[in-house]
Amino acid sequence: MGRITAKRPVTRIRLDSGTTRRPDTLAVEEPLEIRADGRPVAVTMRTPGHDVELSTGFFLSEGIIRDGGDVLTAIHCGGPGTGLGGEANTYNVLDVSLAAHVPPPDAATERNFYTTSSCGVCGKASIDAVRTVSAFGVTDEDLRLTPELIASLPETLREHQDVFDKTGGLHAAGLFTADGELLVLREDVGRHNAVDKVVGWAAQKGRLPARGTILQVSGRASFELVQKAVMAGIPVLSAVSAPSSLAVELADEAGLTLLGFVRGPRLNVYTHAARVLAPGAAPGAGEDAADDVAAAPAIIP
Amino acid sequence: MGRITAKRPVTRIRLDSGTTRRPDTLAVEEPLEIRADGRPVAVTMRTPGHDVELSTGFFLSEGIIRDGGDVLTAIHCGGPGTGLGGEANTYNVLDVSLAAHVPPPDAATERNFYTTSSCGVCGKASIDAVRTVSAFGVTDEDLRLTPELIASLPETLREHQDVFDKTGGLHAAGLFTADGELLVLREDVGRHNAVDKVVGWAAQKGRLPARGTILQVSGRASFELVQKAVMAGIPVLSAVSAPSSLAVELADEAGLTLLGFVRGPRLNVYTHAARVLAPGAAPGAGEDAADDVAAAPAIIP
Repeated sequence: MGRITAKRPVTRIRLDSGTTRRPDTLAVEEPLEIRADGRPVAVTMRTPGHDVELSTGFFLSEGIIRDGGDVLTAIHCGGPGTGLGGEANTYNVLDVSLAAHVPPPDAATERNFYTTSSCGVCGKASIDAVRTVSAFGVTDEDLRLTPELIASLPETLREHQDVFDKTGGLHAAGLFTADGELLVLREDVGRHNAVDKVVGWAAQKGRLPARGTILQVSGRASFELVQKAVMAGIPVLSAVSAPSSLAVELADEAGLTLLGFVRGPRLNVYTHAARVLAPGAAPGAGEDAADDVAAAPAIIP
Repeated sequence: MGRITAKRPVTRIRLDSGTTRRPDTLAVEEPLEIRADGRPVAVTMRTPGHDVELSTGFFLSEGIIRDGGDVLTAIHCGGPGTGLGGEANTYNVLDVSLAAHVPPPDAATERNFYTTSSCGVCGKASIDAVRTVSAFGVTDEDLRLTPELIASLPETLREHQDVFDKTGGLHAAGLFTADGELLVLREDVGRHNAVDKVVGWAAQKGRLPARGTILQVSGRASFELVQKAVMAGIPVLSAVSAPSSLAVELADEAGLTLLGFVRGPRLNVYTHAARVLAPGAAPGAGEDAADDVAAAPAIIP
């Protein structure tokens, strides 16, 4: 855990009771340079650990690879066996060897993903870009979840956040089955990284597309988080806080059920509400209950 | 406000009282492509508005420009006067004309900023990179703040968050004087963007380096937020949530006072505690009070 948390002295001030100085536990943040076959592709500030998952999830989210099999090997540069003797291994550079059929990623991948060559960059173009490169798409039209199950996910996520418990603040993402079983949880100083690690885990386990699962995140739902879910074929994204306009638009077009403000006994369904049953309905209780919730038609493209 | 918030239908589920469907207000997220003299430099997902501030703050944070005077003009591509007739202006591409003495930014600016050409990328290299490109550095060794004043900043910030009130979730950054006066507040779906807008505002107003100010942010304190404060010469960064290890290390080396978990009557001082007086001490009460707090020596490089 030495690279995941770090101790630093902190001066704690309480307005009513004065000042103390003691060690505090912080979440570690370090840069990771992701390379593909020796060429740098991206640098992200991340919490060390699960770097292969992170890189695999990143490549998958960007449409560079389609599944875990496209990653042949991954090695921290300067580590044993790289032949770069004499240079200390920072474990902050990961070189990923991709399958021969994968086109070499452009170093400007992330930028090009959102933009066109014309002056017409806009939200619609961003959505089209995701649709163009998506290997799976979202299906699971028959998936039905009770709001009670959904409402339980943030608490389960929180209970399993080991690093959050020590540091008091860290993003988390968890992949759940439709029965509410936690498959994997990852924490990171960057919320995108936490999701990339979860997606990378699913890719490594041969679980893509991740049909029948729910991705629960600890914060807000941005366009990029919806993008990552869509690229992994995850049909439901549940966020503790608010979604953005573009997150809702992408979720709507891609057929993903987007949930926000999932807090205690409340939750909001922004898109494709047919997958969420009415309160009190048993799972599998049938279409009647679902119809109650989905007062507006769910548009599944 | 049409581009800052958007209405979308939402299905609200309450486990105890059923389901309603109504319009919900969301924070708008749209891509912004930042260009320098016609060449694309970066794309960021942001809440539209204050795009010139955002781009100016981004260039400044990355060490590309030194002050607002280095930005000559800025225009949304496709807008009036660009000569690109016939193409609709999405107001999502901003072309910034930089002063003749500014070297053309590399399209891979952001990536190169954190990495070296060797396999030795690490937190220390990231810190060195900030020190190398910083135009001002942090001074303000004589600045003294009461914890009571610091404790009041998050509430002031929250009171002025117009878009948060409507959407229930948005990042904010505010620049305060040492007397607690709010100079500027910006909201954005991206927390880095909110800070870039604030820094860009200061640059446009000729207020850089922003000596004697406090930057209050609504979330966590990452390396990149500390970097942005340091690059703008802001001596104090106050966050509502936790800092990362690398944020603390950079703040320590750069001479910035980093505050975290600033919530109600409590706050933590991670670095350069000499700028924070003991509770109950009047501002300017002298070094004795400060010495009480700064039990460990403050290292100002």
